[in-house]
Amino acid sequence: ARCGFPEVIFAEGKTVDWMVGIINRLIGADQDVFATRVNEEQASTFARLYPQGIQDRIARTFWLPVVTERKTPVGDVLVITAGTSDLPVAREALNTASVMGVGTELIVDVGVAGLHRILSKVDRLRQADIVIVVAGMDGALPSVVGGLVDCAVIAVPTSIGYGAAFQGLAPLLTMLNACSAAVVTVNIDAGFKAGYTAARIVHRMYRSEKS
Amino acid sequence: ARCGFPEVIFAEGKTVDWMVGIINRLIGADQDVFATRVNEEQASTFARLYPQGIQDRIARTFWLPVVTERKTPVGDVLVITAGTSDLPVAREALNTASVMGVGTELIVDVGVAGLHRILSKVDRLRQADIVIVVAGMDGALPSVVGGLVDCAVIAVPTSIGYGAAFQGLAPLLTMLNACSAAVVTVNIDAGFKAGYTAARIVHRMYRSEKS
Amino acid sequence: ARCGFPEVIFAEGKTVDWMVGIINRLIGADQDVFATRVNEEQASTFARLYPQGIQDRIARTFWLPVVTERKTPVGDVLVITAGTSDLPVAREALNTASVMGVGTELIVDVGVAGLHRILSKVDRLRQADIVIVVAGMDGALPSVVGGLVDCAVIAVPTSIGYGAAFQGLAPLLTMLNACSAAVVTVNIDAGFKAGYTAARIVHRMYRSEKS
Amino acid sequence: ARCGFPEVIFAEGKTVDWMVGIINRLIGADQDVFATRVNEEQASTFARLYPQGIQDRIARTFWLPVVTERKTPVGDVLVITAGTSDLPVAREALNTASVMGVGTELIVDVGVAGLHRILSKVDRLRQADIVIVVAGMDGALPSVVGGLVDCAVIAVPTSIGYGAAFQGLAPLLTMLNACSAAVVTVNIDAGFKAGYTAARIVHRMYRSEKS
Amino acid sequence: ARCGFPEVIFAEGKTVDWMVGIINRLIGADQDVFATRVNEEQASTFARLYPQGIQDRIARTFWLPVVTERKTPVGDVLVITAGTSDLPVAREALNTASVMGVGTELIVDVGVAGLHRILSKVDRLRQADIVIVVAGMDGALPSVVGGLVDCAVIAVPTSIGYGAAFQGLAPLLTMLNACSAAVVTVNIDAGFKAGYTAARIVHRMYRSEKS
Amino acid sequence: ARCGFPEVIFAEGKTVDWMVGIINRLIGADQDVFATRVNEEQASTFARLYPQGIQDRIARTFWLPVVTERKTPVGDVLVITAGTSDLPVAREALNTASVMGVGTELIVDVGVAGLHRILSKVDRLRQADIVIVVAGMDGALPSVVGGLVDCAVIAVPTSIGYGAAFQGLAPLLTMLNACSAAVVTVNIDAGFKAGYTAARIVHRMYRSEKS
Amino acid sequence: ARCGFPEVIFAEGKTVDWMVGIINRLIGADQDVFATRVNEEQASTFARLYPQGIQDRIARTFWLPVVTERKTPVGDVLVITAGTSDLPVAREALNTASVMGVGTELIVDVGVAGLHRILSKVDRLRQADIVIVVAGMDGALPSVVGGLVDCAVIAVPTSIGYGAAFQGLAPLLTMLNACSAAVVTVNIDAGFKAGYTAARIVHRMYRSEKS
Amino acid sequence: ARCGFPEVIFAEGKTVDWMVGIINRLIGADQDVFATRVNEEQASTFARLYPQGIQDRIARTFWLPVVTERKTPVGDVLVITAGTSDLPVAREALNTASVMGVGTELIVDVGVAGLHRILSKVDRLRQADIVIVVAGMDGALPSVVGGLVDCAVIAVPTSIGYGAAFQGLAPLLTMLNACSAAVVTVNIDAGFKAGYTAARIVHRMYRSEKS
Ligand SMILES: Nc1ncnc2c1ncn2[C@@H]1O[C@H](COP(=O)(O)O)[C@@H](O)[C@H]1O
Ligand SMILES: Nc1ncnc2c1ncn2[C@@H]1O[C@H](COP(=O)(O)O)[C@@H](O)[C@H]1O
Ligand SMILES: Nc1ncnc2c1ncn2[C@@H]1O[C@H](COP(=O)(O)O)[C@@H](O)[C@H]1O
Ligand SMILES: Nc1ncnc2c1ncn2[C@@H]1O[C@H](COP(=O)(O)O)[C@@H](O)[C@H]1O
Ligand SMILES: [Mg+2]
Ligand SMILES: [Mg+2]
Ligand SMILES: [Mg+2]
Ligand SMILES: [Mg+2]
Ligand SMILES: [Mg+2]
Ligand SMILES: [Mg+2]
Ligand SMILES: [Mg+2]
Ligand SMILES: [Mg+2]
Repeated sequence: ARCGFPEVIFAEGKTVDWMVGIINRLIGADQDVFATRVNEEQASTFARLYPQGIQDRIARTFWLPVVTERKTPVGDVLVITAGTSDLPVAREALNTASVMGVGTELIVDVGVAGLHRILSKVDRLRQADIVIVVAGMDGALPSVVGGLVDCAVIAVPTSIGYGAAFQGLAPLLTMLNACSAAVVTVNIDAGFKAGYTAARIVHRMYRSEKS
Repeated sequence: ARCGFPEVIFAEGKTVDWMVGIINRLIGADQDVFATRVNEEQASTFARLYPQGIQDRIARTFWLPVVTERKTPVGDVLVITAGTSDLPVAREALNTASVMGVGTELIVDVGVAGLHRILSKVDRLRQADIVIVVAGMDGALPSVVGGLVDCAVIAVPTSIGYGAAFQGLAPLLTMLNACSAAVVTVNIDAGFKAGYTAARIVHRMYRSEKS
Repeated sequence: ARCGFPEVIFAEGKTVDWMVGIINRLIGADQDVFATRVNEEQASTFARLYPQGIQDRIARTFWLPVVTERKTPVGDVLVITAGTSDLPVAREALNTASVMGVGTELIVDVGVAGLHRILSKVDRLRQADIVIVVAGMDGALPSVVGGLVDCAVIAVPTSIGYGAAFQGLAPLLTMLNACSAAVVTVNIDAGFKAGYTAARIVHRMYRSEKS
Repeated sequence: ARCGFPEVIFAEGKTVDWMVGIINRLIGADQDVFATRVNEEQASTFARLYPQGIQDRIARTFWLPVVTERKTPVGDVLVITAGTSDLPVAREALNTASVMGVGTELIVDVGVAGLHRILSKVDRLRQADIVIVVAGMDGALPSVVGGLVDCAVIAVPTSIGYGAAFQGLAPLLTMLNACSAAVVTVNIDAGFKAGYTAARIVHRMYRSEKS
Repeated sequence: ARCGFPEVIFAEGKTVDWMVGIINRLIGADQDVFATRVNEEQASTFARLYPQGIQDRIARTFWLPVVTERKTPVGDVLVITAGTSDLPVAREALNTASVMGVGTELIVDVGVAGLHRILSKVDRLRQADIVIVVAGMDGALPSVVGGLVDCAVIAVPTSIGYGAAFQGLAPLLTMLNACSAAVVTVNIDAGFKAGYTAARIVHRMYRSEKS
Repeated sequence: ARCGFPEVIFAEGKTVDWMVGIINRLIGADQDVFATRVNEEQASTFARLYPQGIQDRIARTFWLPVVTERKTPVGDVLVITAGTSDLPVAREALNTASVMGVGTELIVDVGVAGLHRILSKVDRLRQADIVIVVAGMDGALPSVVGGLVDCAVIAVPTSIGYGAAFQGLAPLLTMLNACSAAVVTVNIDAGFKAGYTAARIVHRMYRSEKS
Repeated sequence: ARCGFPEVIFAEGKTVDWMVGIINRLIGADQDVFATRVNEEQASTFARLYPQGIQDRIARTFWLPVVTERKTPVGDVLVITAGTSDLPVAREALNTASVMGVGTELIVDVGVAGLHRILSKVDRLRQADIVIVVAGMDGALPSVVGGLVDCAVIAVPTSIGYGAAFQGLAPLLTMLNACSAAVVTVNIDAGFKAGYTAARIVHRMYRSEKS
Repeated sequence: ARCGFPEVIFAEGKTVDWMVGIINRLIGADQDVFATRVNEEQASTFARLYPQGIQDRIARTFWLPVVTERKTPVGDVLVITAGTSDLPVAREALNTASVMGVGTELIVDVGVAGLHRILSKVDRLRQADIVIVVAGMDGALPSVVGGLVDCAVIAVPTSIGYGAAFQGLAPLLTMLNACSAAVVTVNIDAGFKAGYTAARIVHRMYRSEKS
């Protein structure tokens, strides 16, 4: 829980009992709980044991705020997706940034095959402190967005696609080779990492004093 | 020389003597000569032996028209590139289509990092019978072009780029996964194949009678 | 629904409810519905809700014509397969081209291991405006077909095969390296893309006036 | 030259004449010139033609400030390397961020095989607004640094190494899988991209007003 | 059973009956039985048939000591893991070394993202004859440990991780490229091989006479 | 020199002196000398020192028969190539089989893009005891030949091609996945292995008695 | 059914009904039936419908001899495996060669980790006309066998192994690079291809007259 | 220079001046100098400046003992190679272990294609404390050696080979999948790492007291 951020639990491969043990320990220590990659079985148990918890079944996240005083969110992290199937990864990014106290907004299905969709959002894009772009298949959207904004773009390749998409390898390579210079990339389907890094950057932007 | 197209010689890995032998045999048979992947040594020899030949040192092609009656070019093949470094491959495509009797035009450096460049060409793009899109690095341009036109797009990945571009693998995968549905792809740096296929399609479009 | 083509829905990964929502919206807008990659659960629901719809359980497509005036199909797209197992991908290509108003025909199991099979079809092949060749394992058929016809060949690698076929990588590479020059390639198992691109090309061939 | 940044020229694969043409055009337009991936031949010509230009033969960059009024650098971008061989890529990052008006500092050879080296720099690391970590071979340094600081880490894999380093693939994969959550990655040897993105982030941090 | 080590059975892909046959034959020959990669069905059957056997359901090993005189363990093999999910592989290594008569100890979850964890164990690490380091994702821990100790490090990459971890390829490459020179590597998830090799080395260390 | 075959020297990476030492030792022992992958420098030295040796500068082989009594060649190994660039590999195969006392013949440039070429050779193909098929790029020829003959086919992929041929990977995968069942494959450019194996098979066919 | 061999049906991916249709058609045509890759459901149906058929549940083959006059098997194909898990692939090879009228024998579990096992079989190995070597994991056995015999070796990599075995890629590459020159390779798990090719070679050996 | 070992300099990519600077600094500090991957230019300069230094032009190492009191070498590290081309890597391993004060011996060209070669060395192999096995191409030798000895085997894949050896990938995978359990692996061509790790292990074996 460095710098007041909640401890984030990676639920994948953990038994329900194991998870409950970790959560109870965090609650006992008056710490917020945030878990990613929560599966169906874990989610139902949490729903029963922690009815006040906020579940996002699409993002597969679980959020249990324990700390009572909560700061107003700062900054503006915009998460956008190329297709509707990229939604789970996008919402993992969004929820992660949100629970870390950052202002967030989501725009879905603005891929480059219909360019008018992203072009109609240019004004909104230019307001953001950081844009997280989530895309599978060709992974072309971050290259386009990077040319439309002045801030940094965090690109998240997804495993959406088939055949030569090779479980996300294709968009990963596209993003690493983005012809726009301000695009940085995270692991395939790593919405969490994009949201977490964006939040770190935004918090540094909105510190009261500068170093 | 099926269907009146010139015999195309792949010069790579052939000695100058070998090439000259093939060329003289074609001239003797009153056939047009077109060679691709011509290296410096071959080009200088051809310049000396066949001064009437048309050399494109950037495209690395050699064109020696022998047949005297030449038909007016038909159709409209538009070749566009994402960057200036893609020019050699683009001109290989263009020259191939041209010597096969097809109308061609070239637009260079309209990659997606500066979207206004391709957007300013939309009217021209929509006139084309086929658009050949040549791009390295992220290979994102065909996805965008495929969404702007009604015709088919032939995408040519190039080996331009470094690191995770992996000698053209990155744009190849991008193009195979293009989110625009009318994008078909050829081998890395295969300008010749794109130009040749485009010419075949256009000639079928402009036959006097339909089957 | 650009250029009067139906909106094509990619059903993979979409819930039944989600699909039904999209379909009803299209019907409400008097638009044709065509879906690919339909799974068993989706197909049964559609069968119940839209009994007039045309299902192809092998191709995994769903076709619900809504527009009442329908133009006579134009052109001739020939789809051929190397083996019988390539049938689902081939029929996805065929159905896509068909619903886009193009004349289509299918020839199955004419792979190169028994060369007489494809040789006996040469006359039919030479009539086609475009040949779509679907093959897995060695992916050798498009190279042979490209040498037999004067039109363009769209090659579709399939994930049929085992071991070093690597889920379609082997035929994909074969096709990208086809020694016949007029072969262009789409993604592994991307029957839809082949059919869609073929239809675009054919419609341009059969426009009343030329640009 | 979006947002007052100099136009950056990618010199690789461009002839000397071509480069000089671009540079003179920029000078004529009263714009700063910054070039990366400058080779020996280009560098000597620039030294002769533009003696006032600043050359970094290790980083392979060329910097020709034309604009006369120059703002005080803002922020603090720290560039660190695992080994001494990573220096050229690190200095490309550093120079890029510097010419974009950002404060920079370089620390070399603090790889994880001798952990005391990075541990002795922790206080300095914690002051930075962004840390750029450049490493080849195992690419392990960003994982360690990400756990020591509160800001974001931009990881740059280099092609330093042999055998199973596969020209930078090994450190690239390491960085994409960094167990520290605030690590984002750029292409292999892409010092330019890291420096450029860091500068964009820092400039947004030091805008006078917040959005 | 070379050099008094128990015969080790690789249970994966063997039917329960087949396994029981092998075990009974070994018991009949008064030999110890040790099996790795035991699945649930095999484990339950063994629990019923050989209640005196020692099962490790996490490591998926089964240990049935038959030989009655047992030597005191020699040496000190330390097994450490980067994350908690690496536990099964670590315990396979530990159990293998143990049944081969070697002293072992396990330290879990000391990955490099929180460097204090491994630093607090340095004294213990320096006592070990061999350190086995088990890590997935970035696989960075062996590089760090190799710099902290004077003995050899056997690195075991695990398939823990997602996306560009590529089922353990990422940590495997990291470990092969470890910047610490005394790191040797085994196959992905090959806890058995690491434990077995460590035991061979330790037994040679503690022979009564030297060759 | 098992079974009376000459010792075959792999010249690649050996110095001229080293090679001469080996050759003189073989001559001293009254053994035939056959070397493959001979470079220019080695070849000129051999030409000077052993003028009676038979050099094939295209195949890069060197043949120095020492044994005086030579048996009549037996059997019929047919080597065919898809393109003219495959010639060096094909002649390495041919020369290897020849020096091992087997009857050989070569047919060049009968690739599948012009199917009439291979079809016109069917009668000759059907006489062979073994057919060695050498092909680069798509590697499609062995699949076709395997369906035309009753004997076994040894396929040799070559590194001829560019882009997604990946230095012979593409034809290698094609051949491993050949839809004709009697195709076996050797390493990329391994003409020697194909010729050697063919010779072993043929010698077993023509033994006086059968086991 | 070229050259009197039975038509071989590849059962994978075919429905039971489809298979039964093919089998009945072959029976009606008085042809032998041999199927590979038969799954459980197909096997049970065949057991019921064709009780006289010979099923090998381990090899997953089905053999229904229909032709009544059967020639005495000729020749000697020896199939050997490195481990016991390679048995299914080995028996597919063995059964295929057997139904094609060739003499066969199987030796299991003689991998190189215990070299005495293969050494004790050297006399038997040297009698064979062809040795088929089946191995997964390191795939080292064919290299050893190739040095022990005078005949050709057909190597079959299997998908047995884990981690960096990459589903058979590791033994495939080993075999293609075998340091013994008379090793040829087939696809991963392609027991059928090995058996089929071996049978073709043996039949040519035992023809009454030589060409 | 941890634990009295000489500082090892990785000369690759370092200028001669840079190297001389490092060496003089070490000499000034009364420390031994050992460098690996020394190129021709570096070696000639060292020969002139440090005539007392010991150069191995095949191993590409440079050894300049400065410390005057030298301990008697302990232990027995046996380095063996499959082929003669593996010699440089083997000698890098050997020299590294030697300068670290360990007893070493080298056996060359005992690859598995002629099994008698390694079998004739079994007694010698069984005396060693550690065997380092260096092999390219199929990389099969460590699997065989691991089954013949009771000590650990360190396997070093080399980039010797062509085609599907993929610059050492093939033997690397073979070694990681070695069917002998006591084989650990280092990077391709990493003779240094093998020698260094072997020396660490041996020094721990021959400490006067045990922990
Ligand atoms: N979706 C995710 N992807 C990658 N890392 C994650 C994810 N969710 C949580 N983590 C990281 O995993 C760590 C916790 O892992 P664990 O101790 O196994 O629960 C946290 O510190 C996070 O940095
Ligand atoms: N089988 C398919 N493969 C690739 N793309 C498809 C397929 N079927 C439909 N599409 C494309 O997917 C888009 C619709 O995606 P969605 O909005 O997710 O339904 C359409 O515009 C089609 O171009
Ligand atoms: N296990 C197998 N692996 C590869 N090819 C096979 C196998 N079994 C049968 N075949 C081939 O598959 C062809 C029949 O395929 P099909 O027409 O789909 O039944 C036969 O001609 C065989 O050559
Ligand atoms: N051939 C080699 N392969 C890998 N690492 C090496 C090699 N030679 C030296 N090293 C390592 O490189 C480090 C020195 O690197 P440097 O500071 O660049 O000279 C030493 O600590 C060695 O561990
Ligand atoms: Mg969409
Ligand atoms: Mg440009
Ligand atoms: Mg068939
Ligand atoms: Mg260093
Ligand atoms: Mg943890
Ligand atoms: Mg040719
Ligand atoms: Mg066994
Ligand atoms: Mg040798």
